[in-house]
Amino acid sequence: MNYQKLTEQIKIKRSFLCVGLDTDILKIPKHLLNNSDPVFSFNKAIIDVTAGFSVAYKPNIAFYESLGWQGWKSLEKTVEYVREKYPDIFMIADAKRGDIGNTSNLYARTFFEKLEFDAVTVSPYMGEDSVKPFIGYPEKWVILLALTSNKGAADFQFLKDEKSCNRLFESVLKTSQAWGTYENMMYVVGATKAEKLKEIRQIIPEHFILVPGIGAQGGSLQEVAVNGLNSRCGLLVNSSRGIIYASKETDFAEKAGEAAKEIQQEMEKLLKTANLI
Amino acid sequence: MNYQKLTEQIKIKRSFLCVGLDTDILKIPKHLLNNSDPVFSFNKAIIDVTAGFSVAYKPNIAFYESLGWQGWKSLEKTVEYVREKYPDIFMIADAKRGDIGNTSNLYARTFFEKLEFDAVTVSPYMGEDSVKPFIGYPEKWVILLALTSNKGAADFQFLKDEKSCNRLFESVLKTSQAWGTYENMMYVVGATKAEKLKEIRQIIPEHFILVPGIGAQGGSLQEVAVNGLNSRCGLLVNSSRGIIYASKETDFAEKAGEAAKEIQQEMEKLLKTANLI
Repeated sequence: MNYQKLTEQIKIKRSFLCVGLDTDILKIPKHLLNNSDPVFSFNKAIIDVTAGFSVAYKPNIAFYESLGWQGWKSLEKTVEYVREKYPDIFMIADAKRGDIGNTSNLYARTFFEKLEFDAVTVSPYMGEDSVKPFIGYPEKWVILLALTSNKGAADFQFLKDEKSCNRLFESVLKTSQAWGTYENMMYVVGATKAEKLKEIRQIIPEHFILVPGIGAQGGSLQEVAVNGLNSRCGLLVNSSRGIIYASKETDFAEKAGEAAKEIQQEMEKLLKTANLI
Repeated sequence: MNYQKLTEQIKIKRSFLCVGLDTDILKIPKHLLNNSDPVFSFNKAIIDVTAGFSVAYKPNIAFYESLGWQGWKSLEKTVEYVREKYPDIFMIADAKRGDIGNTSNLYARTFFEKLEFDAVTVSPYMGEDSVKPFIGYPEKWVILLALTSNKGAADFQFLKDEKSCNRLFESVLKTSQAWGTYENMMYVVGATKAEKLKEIRQIIPEHFILVPGIGAQGGSLQEVAVNGLNSRCGLLVNSSRGIIYASKETDFAEKAGEAAKEIQQEMEKLLKTANLI
């Protein structure tokens, strides 16, 4: 999906919500465990009730890998389902990959060709040749970790380079801009670092920012929007546990739909306030 | 596998060779493609001829993921095969994972429980809580990226912190030492950065270092050993393409065995020179 279409979808749905499909077999409602593929059954039900309120889905690959090849199969079925039934949804593989060029090429092949994701999250530690293989596929995106939502972000991401005086996450933002454009690169900035979004917007005024960390991790949507929205929205805000585990009973899908709708309505207000719709 | 046993194996086999199972379906001999699981057939043949000369195998997960769930199945079968037939071999999942704690927990569960790997490579960008979930499993290891073998390593890994004057890879080495011990953590340092191994040994005298990048990537084994060996060896040197694709014909296994033996013999000399055997 290209930049223009993603931006259009945000306007049509009045939402910049990304639903994190962090589907943990230990947390899904018990009655689903009798199905032949409980993870896919859960995802399908969640997708059907939330697709009207969200522009993107983000399966975190760890959850699928933890079930071995069966989990990988559930992931493939989930992507195929969205691709067929909701072709206007942006699909993000939250994989945080990154390796030497030869290997990153294979990861790109996996997520963009074997599975039809629109975007993959990538760790910047190994630099340009680990990221470049994900750039250049038409209408595909790399989403580079910049400032993450977790406590450990403080360990290295704030180290300040003596030469440029940039902190590491700023170096990542600045250096990597030469590798792609706002039409094929996004960045991850955690909602728990929302006060930094204003500074970050100075460095990347046009790029989309994927913001995890509202809900269970404690970030505020309002604060993210005020600091992070740009002239064409430029935000995808992710919620996982708050939506997909809104209920653990037989009404899980209904409650997930309500939780997604609630966030969408808050987003609609924020988009209106910012004169974006 | 614990530190003592790994060190013993190095002495018994007179080798610190790790064979990289970067098995690419596009590169394996054509006659194997008729088998029901060509990737596993290839790995099995390679393992049988190289197990006498190597102490570790390192499948790079990207190669398996690129084949979807079937590839994941080939990976599972490969690990099971080694576990059953060669229980003294150290198994490394070259996955370069790392995510918020909740997710890293799942990756650890995948590689240490679902698959019985001894170690997983992890990217340090997200800091302590992304790495800690891999530490604490008895006899399991985390292998943290420090200074990688690729050109892009120069983009961020050499940025010098104005406060400590440490370059990023040095900060990673120093900070992370508080997270584990030399008995459950190793570091990746590329063979193409062998001249840096001497400095790195000052920071981590006891830890194992996993060194990729000899062979196809151009690093020198001799230089790695001279700068990197410690008083109990402390090195695992990886070779992938130089061994597993030594021939692309029906004699591929025989040639792989010869290539592994050649490296083992060079390693034996280096271990003797260093008075380690």
